[in-house]
Amino acid sequence: MTTVANGVNVQALLEAREVLKDAPEAAQFTWRASAKWQGGVHSRIKVQSFFGLGEGQIHKTGRAFEADHPEVLAAEDNGITPIEYLLIGLTSCLTAGVASVAQNRGIQLRSVESTVEGAHDIRGILGADSDVRNGFNDIRVTFTIDADASRQEIEALVAQSQKRSAVFDALTNPTNVTVEVA
Amino acid sequence: MTTVANGVNVQALLEAREVLKDAPEAAQFTWRASAKWQGGVHSRIKVQSFFGLGEGQIHKTGRAFEADHPEVLAAEDNGITPIEYLLIGLTSCLTAGVASVAQNRGIQLRSVESTVEGAHDIRGILGADSDVRNGFNDIRVTFTIDADASRQEIEALVAQSQKRSAVFDALTNPTNVTVEVA
Repeated sequence: MTTVANGVNVQALLEAREVLKDAPEAAQFTWRASAKWQGGVHSRIKVQSFFGLGEGQIHKTGRAFEADHPEVLAAEDNGITPIEYLLIGLTSCLTAGVASVAQNRGIQLRSVESTVEGAHDIRGILGADSDVRNGFNDIRVTFTIDADASRQEIEALVAQSQKRSAVFDALTNPTNVTVEVA
Repeated sequence: MTTVANGVNVQALLEAREVLKDAPEAAQFTWRASAKWQGGVHSRIKVQSFFGLGEGQIHKTGRAFEADHPEVLAAEDNGITPIEYLLIGLTSCLTAGVASVAQNRGIQLRSVESTVEGAHDIRGILGADSDVRNGFNDIRVTFTIDADASRQEIEALVAQSQKRSAVFDALTNPTNVTVEVA
Protein backbone atom coordinates (compact mmCIF):
# COMPACT_ATOMS: atom_id res chain seq x y z
CA MET A 1 0.00 0.00 0.00
CA THR A 2 1.32 3.47 -0.86
CA THR A 3 1.62 5.98 1.96
CA VAL A 4 -1.37 8.29 2.12
CA ALA A 5 -1.10 11.95 3.01
CA ASN A 6 -4.37 13.20 4.45
CA GLY A 7 -2.54 15.27 7.04
CA VAL A 8 -3.87 13.38 10.06
CA ASN A 9 -1.29 12.19 12.58
CA VAL A 10 -2.93 8.82 13.16
CA GLN A 11 0.17 7.39 14.79
CA ALA A 12 0.00 10.01 17.56
CA LEU A 13 -3.72 9.34 18.06
CA LEU A 14 -3.18 5.59 18.31
CA GLU A 15 -0.43 6.20 20.86
CA ALA A 16 -2.69 8.55 22.82
CA ARG A 17 -5.36 5.85 22.87
CA GLU A 18 -2.93 3.40 24.45
CA VAL A 19 -1.62 5.93 26.99
CA LEU A 20 -5.10 7.08 28.02
CA LYS A 21 -6.29 3.51 28.58
CA ASP A 22 -4.07 3.54 31.67
CA ALA A 23 -4.53 7.24 32.53
CA PRO A 24 -8.25 7.96 32.39
CA GLU A 25 -7.87 11.17 34.43
CA ALA A 26 -5.78 12.72 31.63
CA ALA A 27 -8.63 12.01 29.20
CA GLN A 28 -11.04 14.28 31.10
CA PHE A 29 -11.38 17.42 28.99
CA THR A 30 -13.49 20.51 29.72
CA TRP A 31 -14.43 22.73 26.80
CA ARG A 32 -15.53 26.30 27.48
CA ALA A 33 -17.25 29.30 25.93
CA SER A 34 -18.33 32.62 27.38
CA ALA A 35 -21.11 34.81 26.05
CA LYS A 36 -21.97 38.46 26.50
CA TRP A 37 -25.34 39.92 25.59
CA GLN A 38 -25.09 42.73 23.01
CA GLY A 39 -28.71 43.92 23.06
CA GLY A 40 -31.77 42.39 21.42
CA VAL A 41 -31.13 38.69 20.85
CA HIS A 42 -27.56 39.36 19.72
CA SER A 43 -24.66 37.93 21.71
CA ARG A 44 -20.91 37.67 21.27
CA ILE A 45 -19.26 34.43 22.32
CA LYS A 46 -15.58 33.88 22.99
CA VAL A 47 -13.67 30.62 22.97
CA GLN A 48 -10.05 30.35 24.01
CA SER A 49 -9.19 28.15 26.99
CA PHE A 50 -9.96 24.55 27.77
CA PHE A 51 -8.75 21.88 30.16
CA GLY A 52 -7.19 18.57 29.19
CA LEU A 53 -4.31 16.19 29.81
CA GLY A 54 -4.52 17.25 33.45
CA GLU A 55 -3.92 20.96 32.98
CA GLY A 56 -5.20 24.22 31.55
CA GLN A 57 -4.76 24.56 27.79
CA ILE A 58 -5.21 27.44 25.41
CA HIS A 59 -6.04 27.59 21.71
CA LYS A 60 -3.33 29.21 19.57
CA THR A 61 -5.85 31.90 18.70
CA GLY A 62 -8.76 33.16 20.81
CA ARG A 63 -11.86 33.48 18.67
CA ALA A 64 -15.07 35.49 18.90
CA PHE A 65 -18.41 34.57 17.34
CA GLU A 66 -21.64 36.48 16.80
CA ALA A 67 -25.10 34.99 17.26
CA ASP A 68 -28.38 36.70 16.48
CA HIS A 69 -31.74 35.97 14.89
CA PRO A 70 -32.53 36.84 11.27
CA GLU A 71 -34.66 39.74 10.09
CA VAL A 72 -37.61 37.43 9.31
CA LEU A 73 -37.73 36.74 13.05
CA ALA A 74 -37.80 40.46 13.85
CA ALA A 75 -34.13 40.73 14.75
CA GLU A 76 -31.04 42.34 13.22
CA ASP A 77 -29.12 39.36 11.80
CA ASN A 78 -25.80 40.42 13.30
CA GLY A 79 -24.69 36.79 13.26
CA ILE A 80 -25.93 33.32 12.47
CA THR A 81 -28.56 31.77 14.74
CA PRO A 82 -27.61 29.71 17.79
CA ILE A 83 -29.12 26.56 16.26
CA GLU A 84 -26.98 26.92 13.13
CA TYR A 85 -23.88 26.58 15.32
CA LEU A 86 -24.97 23.00 16.00
CA LEU A 87 -24.88 22.23 12.28
CA ILE A 88 -21.35 23.65 12.03
CA GLY A 89 -20.27 21.39 14.87
CA LEU A 90 -21.89 18.33 13.33
CA THR A 91 -20.56 18.62 9.83
CA SER A 92 -17.03 19.57 10.91
CA CYS A 93 -16.88 16.70 13.41
CA LEU A 94 -17.95 14.15 10.82
CA THR A 95 -15.47 15.61 8.31
CA ALA A 96 -12.62 15.30 10.81
CA GLY A 97 -13.69 11.73 11.41
CA VAL A 98 -13.72 10.88 7.71
CA ALA A 99 -10.17 12.23 7.36
CA SER A 100 -8.93 10.34 10.42
CA VAL A 101 -10.49 7.03 9.44
CA ALA A 102 -9.26 7.39 5.85
CA GLN A 103 -5.73 7.99 7.11
CA ASN A 104 -5.96 4.95 9.37
CA ARG A 105 -7.25 2.77 6.50
CA GLY A 106 -4.68 4.00 3.98
CA ILE A 107 -7.23 5.74 1.76
CA GLN A 108 -6.08 8.93 0.05
CA LEU A 109 -8.74 11.63 0.09
CA ARG A 110 -8.90 14.25 -2.65
CA SER A 111 -11.90 16.27 -1.50
CA VAL A 112 -14.55 15.98 1.18
CA GLU A 113 -17.54 18.25 1.03
CA SER A 114 -20.77 18.06 2.97
CA THR A 115 -24.02 19.86 3.39
CA VAL A 116 -26.17 19.62 6.48
CA GLU A 117 -29.79 20.63 6.79
CA GLY A 118 -31.76 20.82 10.01
CA ALA A 119 -35.55 20.91 9.88
CA HIS A 120 -37.00 23.15 12.56
CA ASP A 121 -40.64 23.93 13.28
CA ILE A 122 -40.42 27.33 14.95
CA ARG A 123 -43.89 27.03 16.48
CA GLY A 124 -42.10 25.35 19.40
CA ILE A 125 -39.83 28.21 20.41
CA LEU A 126 -42.59 30.76 19.75
CA GLY A 127 -44.96 28.89 22.05
CA ALA A 128 -47.55 28.55 19.26
CA ASP A 129 -48.09 24.82 19.81
CA SER A 130 -47.00 22.96 22.95
CA ASP A 131 -46.86 19.67 21.01
CA VAL A 132 -44.03 20.99 18.81
CA ARG A 133 -40.53 20.51 20.18
CA ASN A 134 -38.15 23.46 20.43
CA GLY A 135 -35.18 21.87 18.67
CA PHE A 136 -34.68 20.28 15.27
CA ASN A 137 -37.21 17.75 14.00
CA ASP A 138 -34.45 15.98 12.13
CA ILE A 139 -31.06 16.59 10.58
CA ARG A 140 -29.65 15.28 7.31
CA VAL A 141 -25.98 15.35 6.30
CA THR A 142 -24.89 14.56 2.75
CA PHE A 143 -21.23 13.92 1.90
CA THR A 144 -19.59 14.20 -1.51
CA ILE A 145 -16.19 12.53 -1.33
CA ASP A 146 -13.51 12.13 -3.96
CA ALA A 147 -11.01 9.51 -2.82
CA ASP A 148 -8.86 6.69 -4.02
CA ALA A 149 -11.47 4.17 -2.89
CA SER A 150 -14.61 2.32 -3.94
CA ARG A 151 -18.05 3.65 -3.14
CA GLN A 152 -18.39 0.90 -0.56
CA GLU A 153 -15.12 1.94 1.12
CA ILE A 154 -16.23 5.58 1.12
CA GLU A 155 -19.56 4.65 2.69
CA ALA A 156 -17.67 2.69 5.34
CA LEU A 157 -15.51 5.75 6.12
CA VAL A 158 -18.59 7.83 6.72
CA ALA A 159 -20.20 5.12 8.83
CA GLN A 160 -17.11 4.77 11.03
CA SER A 161 -16.88 8.55 11.38
CA GLN A 162 -20.43 8.64 12.79
CA LYS A 163 -19.60 5.86 15.20
CA ARG A 164 -16.78 7.88 16.79
CA SER A 165 -18.19 11.39 16.41
CA ALA A 166 -18.51 13.49 19.55
CA VAL A 167 -21.08 15.81 17.99
CA PHE A 168 -23.13 13.06 16.31
CA ASP A 169 -23.46 11.47 19.76
CA ALA A 170 -24.26 14.81 21.42
CA LEU A 171 -27.14 15.44 19.00
CA THR A 172 -28.56 11.93 18.75
CA ASN A 173 -28.40 11.13 22.48
CA PRO A 174 -29.41 13.21 25.50
CA THR A 175 -26.91 15.08 27.67
CA ASN A 176 -27.58 16.51 31.09
CA VAL A 177 -27.43 20.33 30.98
CA THR A 178 -27.52 22.36 34.21
CA VAL A 179 -28.29 26.07 33.97
CA GLU A 180 -27.83 28.27 37.04
CA VAL A 181 -27.58 31.88 38.12
CA ALA A 182 -24.28 32.80 39.82
CA MET B 1 -44.56 49.92 34.57
CA THR B 2 -41.93 51.90 32.72
CA THR B 3 -41.13 50.85 29.17
CA VAL B 4 -38.11 48.59 28.99
CA ALA B 5 -35.59 48.75 26.17
CA ASN B 6 -33.83 45.41 25.77
CA GLY B 7 -33.97 45.69 22.01
CA VAL B 8 -36.22 42.68 21.46
CA ASN B 9 -39.27 43.20 19.26
CA VAL B 10 -41.58 41.12 21.44
CA GLN B 11 -44.69 42.55 19.79
CA ALA B 12 -43.61 41.16 16.41
CA LEU B 13 -42.86 37.77 17.96
CA LEU B 14 -46.24 37.62 19.67
CA GLU B 15 -47.91 38.50 16.37
CA ALA B 16 -45.86 35.83 14.57
CA ARG B 17 -47.00 33.30 17.16
CA GLU B 18 -50.64 34.07 16.41
CA VAL B 19 -50.17 34.02 12.63
CA LEU B 20 -48.24 30.73 12.68
CA LYS B 21 -50.90 29.01 14.78
CA ASP B 22 -53.05 29.08 11.65
CA ALA B 23 -50.21 28.68 9.14
CA PRO B 24 -48.03 25.81 10.37
CA GLU B 25 -46.41 25.36 6.93
CA ALA B 26 -44.85 28.83 7.20
CA ALA B 27 -43.27 27.79 10.51
CA GLN B 28 -41.22 25.02 8.86
CA PHE B 29 -37.65 26.33 8.72
CA THR B 30 -34.58 24.57 7.34
CA TRP B 31 -31.18 25.73 8.54
CA ARG B 32 -28.09 24.85 6.50
CA ALA B 33 -24.32 24.71 6.62
CA SER B 34 -21.77 23.38 4.16
CA ALA B 35 -18.30 22.16 5.01
CA LYS B 36 -15.17 21.63 2.98
CA TRP B 37 -12.23 19.58 4.20
CA GLN B 38 -8.97 21.58 4.34
CA GLY B 39 -6.56 18.73 5.12
CA GLY B 40 -5.90 16.99 8.42
CA VAL B 41 -8.94 17.40 10.68
CA HIS B 42 -9.38 21.02 9.60
CA SER B 43 -12.54 22.09 7.82
CA ARG B 44 -14.09 25.36 6.71
CA ILE B 45 -17.84 25.72 7.13
CA LYS B 46 -20.06 28.28 5.44
CA VAL B 47 -23.48 29.46 6.52
CA GLN B 48 -25.60 31.79 4.44
CA SER B 49 -28.96 30.55 3.18
CA PHE B 50 -31.91 29.05 5.01
CA PHE B 51 -35.56 28.35 4.29
CA GLY B 52 -38.49 29.78 6.22
CA LEU B 53 -41.87 31.49 5.94
CA GLY B 54 -42.40 29.38 2.83
CA GLU B 55 -39.44 30.59 0.81
CA GLY B 56 -35.67 30.76 0.51
CA GLN B 57 -34.03 33.27 2.83
CA ILE B 58 -30.53 34.61 3.10
CA HIS B 59 -28.53 36.03 5.99
CA LYS B 60 -27.43 39.65 5.49
CA THR B 61 -23.85 38.39 5.63
CA GLY B 62 -22.52 34.98 4.61
CA ARG B 63 -20.10 33.71 7.23
CA ALA B 64 -17.26 31.20 7.25
CA PHE B 65 -16.00 29.26 10.26
CA GLU B 66 -12.91 27.16 10.90
CA ALA B 67 -12.92 23.90 12.84
CA ASP B 68 -9.88 21.87 13.79
CA HIS B 69 -8.44 19.93 16.71
CA PRO B 70 -5.92 21.43 19.13
CA GLU B 71 -2.20 20.71 19.19
CA VAL B 72 -2.58 18.47 22.28
CA LEU B 73 -4.64 16.19 20.05
CA ALA B 74 -1.89 16.11 17.41
CA ALA B 75 -3.55 18.65 15.09
CA GLU B 76 -2.87 22.22 14.01
CA ASP B 77 -5.48 24.23 15.93
CA ASN B 78 -6.57 26.22 12.89
CA GLY B 79 -9.97 26.72 14.51
CA ILE B 80 -11.98 25.71 17.54
CA THR B 81 -13.11 22.11 17.89
CA PRO B 82 -16.43 20.90 16.48
CA ILE B 83 -17.76 20.16 19.97
CA GLU B 84 -17.04 23.72 21.13
CA TYR B 85 -19.48 24.96 18.47
CA LEU B 86 -22.23 23.25 20.46
CA LEU B 87 -21.36 25.34 23.51
CA ILE B 88 -21.53 28.53 21.43
CA GLY B 89 -25.00 27.55 20.26
CA LEU B 90 -26.20 26.72 23.75
CA THR B 91 -25.06 29.83 25.54
CA SER B 92 -26.17 32.20 22.77
CA CYS B 93 -29.58 30.55 22.55
CA LEU B 94 -30.17 30.85 26.29
CA THR B 95 -28.96 34.47 26.23
CA ALA B 96 -31.40 35.34 23.44
CA GLY B 97 -34.13 33.71 25.49
CA VAL B 98 -33.27 35.66 28.62
CA ALA B 99 -33.48 38.92 26.64
CA SER B 100 -36.79 37.97 25.00
CA VAL B 101 -38.44 36.85 28.22
CA ALA B 102 -37.18 39.93 30.09
CA GLN B 103 -38.65 42.16 27.40
CA ASN B 104 -41.96 40.35 27.59
CA ARG B 105 -42.03 40.65 31.40
CA GLY B 106 -41.03 44.32 31.47
CA ILE B 107 -37.65 43.69 33.10
CA GLN B 108 -34.81 46.00 32.05
CA LEU B 109 -31.55 44.13 31.58
CA ARG B 110 -28.21 45.87 32.12
CA SER B 111 -25.83 43.02 31.41
CA VAL B 112 -26.09 39.30 30.74
CA GLU B 113 -22.96 37.20 30.79
CA SER B 114 -22.60 33.47 30.85
CA THR B 115 -19.98 30.79 30.86
CA VAL B 116 -20.58 27.26 29.68
CA GLU B 117 -18.42 24.24 30.37
CA GLY B 118 -18.80 20.84 28.78
CA ALA B 119 -17.12 17.83 30.37
CA HIS B 120 -15.80 15.40 27.79
CA ASP B 121 -13.98 12.12 28.33
CA ILE B 122 -12.00 11.76 25.12
CA ARG B 123 -11.46 8.04 25.62
CA GLY B 124 -14.76 7.64 23.77
CA ILE B 125 -13.75 9.27 20.49
CA LEU B 126 -10.29 7.69 20.65
CA GLY B 127 -11.80 4.24 21.03
CA ALA B 128 -9.87 3.65 24.28
CA ASP B 129 -12.92 2.46 26.21
CA SER B 130 -16.15 1.35 24.59
CA ASP B 131 -18.11 2.16 27.77
CA VAL B 132 -17.28 5.87 27.43
CA ARG B 133 -19.64 7.90 25.28
CA ASN B 134 -18.32 10.05 22.45
CA GLY B 135 -20.11 13.27 23.40
CA PHE B 136 -20.23 15.42 26.52
CA ASN B 137 -20.73 13.76 29.90
CA ASP B 138 -22.52 16.87 31.10
CA ILE B 139 -22.76 20.57 30.47
CA ARG B 140 -23.04 23.42 32.97
CA VAL B 141 -24.08 26.99 32.13
CA THR B 142 -23.71 29.81 34.69
CA PHE B 143 -25.36 33.18 34.15
CA THR B 144 -24.40 36.48 35.74
CA ILE B 145 -27.21 38.96 35.16
CA ASP B 146 -27.54 42.59 36.16
CA ALA B 147 -31.17 43.66 35.79
CA ASP B 148 -33.84 45.75 37.35
CA ALA B 149 -35.33 42.69 39.07
CA SER B 150 -35.11 40.50 42.14
CA ARG B 151 -32.95 37.41 42.23
CA GLN B 152 -36.11 35.33 42.08
CA GLU B 153 -37.29 37.17 38.96
CA ILE B 154 -33.87 36.70 37.35
CA GLU B 155 -33.92 32.98 38.11
CA ALA B 156 -37.39 32.80 36.57
CA LEU B 157 -36.10 34.49 33.39
CA VAL B 158 -33.38 31.88 33.06
CA ALA B 159 -35.81 29.04 33.74
CA GLN B 160 -38.26 30.28 31.10
CA SER B 161 -35.42 30.73 28.61
CA GLN B 162 -34.46 27.05 29.01
CA LYS B 163 -38.07 26.04 28.53
CA ARG B 164 -38.21 27.67 25.08
CA SER B 165 -34.63 27.16 23.95
CA ALA B 166 -34.08 25.37 20.64
CA VAL B 167 -30.50 24.44 21.51
CA PHE B 168 -31.22 23.38 25.10
CA ASP B 169 -33.78 20.97 23.67
CA ALA B 170 -31.43 19.78 20.93
CA LEU B 171 -28.75 18.88 23.48
CA THR B 172 -30.95 17.43 26.23
CA ASN B 173 -33.19 15.36 23.96
CA PRO B 174 -32.32 13.09 21.03
CA THR B 175 -32.70 14.12 17.40
CA ASN B 176 -32.68 11.82 14.42
CA VAL B 177 -29.58 12.47 12.27
CA THR B 178 -29.21 10.80 8.86
CA VAL B 179 -25.78 10.78 7.24
CA GLU B 180 -25.42 9.68 3.63
CA VAL B 181 -23.03 9.71 0.70
CA ALA B 182 -24.32 11.53 -2.39
